[in-house]
Amino acid sequence: MSEAIRVTIWNENRHETREERVRAIYPQGIHGAIAEGISGDFVIRTATMDEPEQGLPEDVLDATDVLVWWGHIGHRDLSEELADRVAARVRQGMGLIALHSSHYSKPFKRLMGTSCSLLYRDVAEKERLWVTAPAHPIVAGIGPYFELPHEEMYGEFFDIPSPDEVVLTGWFEGGNVFRSGCTFTRGMGKIFYFQPGHQLYPTYYDSNVRRVISNAINWAAPVRRPALQFGKSVPALEPLSVEGE
Amino acid sequence: MSEAIRVTIWNENRHETREERVRAIYPQGIHGAIAEGISGDFVIRTATMDEPEQGLPEDVLDATDVLVWWGHIGHRDLSEELADRVAARVRQGMGLIALHSSHYSKPFKRLMGTSCSLLYRDVAEKERLWVTAPAHPIVAGIGPYFELPHEEMYGEFFDIPSPDEVVLTGWFEGGNVFRSGCTFTRGMGKIFYFQPGHQLYPTYYDSNVRRVISNAINWAAPVRRPALQFGKSVPALEPLSVEGE
Amino acid sequence: MSEAIRVTIWNENRHETREERVRAIYPQGIHGAIAEGISGDFVIRTATMDEPEQGLPEDVLDATDVLVWWGHIGHRDLSEELADRVAARVRQGMGLIALHSSHYSKPFKRLMGTSCSLLYRDVAEKERLWVTAPAHPIVAGIGPYFELPHEEMYGEFFDIPSPDEVVLTGWFEGGNVFRSGCTFTRGMGKIFYFQPGHQLYPTYYDSNVRRVISNAINWAAPVRRPALQFGKSVPALEPLSVEGE
Amino acid sequence: MSEAIRVTIWNENRHETREERVRAIYPQGIHGAIAEGISGDFVIRTATMDEPEQGLPEDVLDATDVLVWWGHIGHRDLSEELADRVAARVRQGMGLIALHSSHYSKPFKRLMGTSCSLLYRDVAEKERLWVTAPAHPIVAGIGPYFELPHEEMYGEFFDIPSPDEVVLTGWFEGGNVFRSGCTFTRGMGKIFYFQPGHQLYPTYYDSNVRRVISNAINWAAPVRRPALQFGKSVPALEPLSVEGE
Repeated sequence: MSEAIRVTIWNENRHETREERVRAIYPQGIHGAIAEGISGDFVIRTATMDEPEQGLPEDVLDATDVLVWWGHIGHRDLSEELADRVAARVRQGMGLIALHSSHYSKPFKRLMGTSCSLLYRDVAEKERLWVTAPAHPIVAGIGPYFELPHEEMYGEFFDIPSPDEVVLTGWFEGGNVFRSGCTFTRGMGKIFYFQPGHQLYPTYYDSNVRRVISNAINWAAPVRRPALQFGKSVPALEPLSVEGE
Repeated sequence: MSEAIRVTIWNENRHETREERVRAIYPQGIHGAIAEGISGDFVIRTATMDEPEQGLPEDVLDATDVLVWWGHIGHRDLSEELADRVAARVRQGMGLIALHSSHYSKPFKRLMGTSCSLLYRDVAEKERLWVTAPAHPIVAGIGPYFELPHEEMYGEFFDIPSPDEVVLTGWFEGGNVFRSGCTFTRGMGKIFYFQPGHQLYPTYYDSNVRRVISNAINWAAPVRRPALQFGKSVPALEPLSVEGE
Repeated sequence: MSEAIRVTIWNENRHETREERVRAIYPQGIHGAIAEGISGDFVIRTATMDEPEQGLPEDVLDATDVLVWWGHIGHRDLSEELADRVAARVRQGMGLIALHSSHYSKPFKRLMGTSCSLLYRDVAEKERLWVTAPAHPIVAGIGPYFELPHEEMYGEFFDIPSPDEVVLTGWFEGGNVFRSGCTFTRGMGKIFYFQPGHQLYPTYYDSNVRRVISNAINWAAPVRRPALQFGKSVPALEPLSVEGE
Repeated sequence: MSEAIRVTIWNENRHETREERVRAIYPQGIHGAIAEGISGDFVIRTATMDEPEQGLPEDVLDATDVLVWWGHIGHRDLSEELADRVAARVRQGMGLIALHSSHYSKPFKRLMGTSCSLLYRDVAEKERLWVTAPAHPIVAGIGPYFELPHEEMYGEFFDIPSPDEVVLTGWFEGGNVFRSGCTFTRGMGKIFYFQPGHQLYPTYYDSNVRRVISNAINWAAPVRRPALQFGKSVPALEPLSVEGE
């Protein structure tokens, strides 16, 4: 694992270009704030939805080990073809870090197989994220919990398949709980869903949030392995008592 | 749980109607053999792909607690709309028993989010299914293992998300292993994937296979509960230190 | 599953017999309140620590399908032999419902293999328990959440192995979260840990708490199955290419 | 993770010192063959049961990030105190790689909470280990399967709690299957159980086995993190509507 991890941070980049108050918080876009804030042996590229091929032509995906995704009001505009391609890449080994409202993005929903629905409330309330899997590398260096003074509430029931691990569990001032940091595996690919990051709060400048995302990228990098045999008929490896047809 | 479970057994019914040697084994169709073989407090209905609305109009789904599915060469002919509808019903609580080649059916793939690919070999070899979760109700009454003298080999790697439980693990004479009985939960719905059942072997007359399917139907019946709140903004349940917008 | 489930409710019965304010809440003991409050096709017996053989002689365990456990200040007084016996019974199929401070009981700790440590605070704060596995039979009939006006806070990190399912997640007024309802399997036995139930609050009179416990007893009842082969050398089931020794 | 991982390979070292035919295979002991065969940024030490304090005094454990364990006929001779100490260290973050017959070792059993029983047969039969979690770093560089020409059969039902992941599933010539490579988390510690390695076969010279053990050591190394709060009463983090006592 001595090679640099090639990270692509994809952002729909719509709130920032349309709303002054969002631009005031994220003048270089959410993707810019994340790119600046993560640290590790990473080669980082950013991509946005208004670029050619919605920012993710084949050659960019070819050169991506881990894809970070932020989407919200643009979910519907993502082409079905690109959604299929991203989901397929994850199954083939590309890591995916799905941030905040990306729970409703097309690639994430395809990979979950559920509605990914949840409760929400955007009143700038406090969230406290508790570590519920302290042995996991995604929370390396993180204390027993960390706080975000203002976040959008996302609340249970969160309609996802049972995660491999619930690394962080969120407490919200208004009375809700949420599985705020969850890992999944799909095929050869690792997925981390991370709830914080509403566009109206400076969440991606928070040092704990940045550390979690950095850790998650390291965790989600593809494992190097021989290609698997797949979807094909194979001869017997042992002598059989029956006659083949 | 004192009410009868309403079971719909859906079968594409193509091999039986097109191939003499399959019809010889399953003269009433695979659906007929299953309907005859399961036992419990069930109200059983069968449905096939050539019936109106491919056998599953809304009113049939409305009256189905658990759907048993067998498909193979007809996967592609299932309408996208029906595939979506069945997957949505499962998320809302309808149980699904996906049999054999149904690992590649549209509803199952939508619910898994993976390729559902695997290795296969059809040479009538022996399979021995070992119980690997003996506390599970799906293997009530089943010994440490049971054997099928002739089955199609399905082998790992089986590209599914990590199951909730691997209830049965298959050993194949030709040298392969398979997670032959797996449980999943998607939303309010329970899913059991069960590998045996190639059309050329009399698998659905086997008493252990019939018992497993009967147990699985009991396990997958919907839990009666109040509707969940979903996908909506909700007011705070507690006083907040911030002002809402 | 048409036979009645034989339930034994075991309680150390110390707070009730030593503290007036606890006796005022639970005049028949916590065991009495639970026995009165659960409903189902149950044959219920209660047992307490000051009875002969600490309330659980072999013949009582022989006649127990599901054991409900409440302990706190008496944990250390439970004999090592009885702790071993109860843990062994669970592995052989007896269900266990471990309530509240029983997270630190000897049988539960033996079955978990971890410290079972947690954070706590007893200031009568409000708890809201959110359903995080709505398809699970343990929350049949329970709404999206339920509230307890006064409970002891138990908070993460709760040092348990990853549960099979986290059925309920607790939100506490003072800022903590907890995996308040968790399922585990050990051998042939099913275990449910349920956090509510401090001796100073009338928790076991709450209708939701009673329903959850009733559901859990139904879920944890042993699956009837042939005895498994165990811990022994077995002959080959297939012809071998090697010579045995 | 740029620091070297401090690995201690512990071996009871009894077969090798007592049986000529085992010494012929492992002249430097099983621990010696493993020490020689693993590769990575490791600082390796070996320890055996006949050394002072059974090879694991406090200062050795203090200097161990990952402990590799091989035991069989000496299980009973391990002191209860050392068994407790090793299990406690794992819960505090030390990685544990439990090899072959170590499924019955005192530390492993304490950490599992189950009987860890299984079926076995020692007739030098062939085992084929299939990768059933290809995204896991423990099988980096490993093909779809690998074979061992001669191994002791270990067969299901293996009485362990549901593993976090079943990374490798074994097929045995004599008709059995086994969860041959399993991961667990206990507290802050990661555990890998790996079935191959009977003393009569040169398993620890196999390149795939060595690679899996090397990968597992990297995976099990402790995550660096602030100490967790544990087992104590904590003040409220939020204002309460009730009065504390």
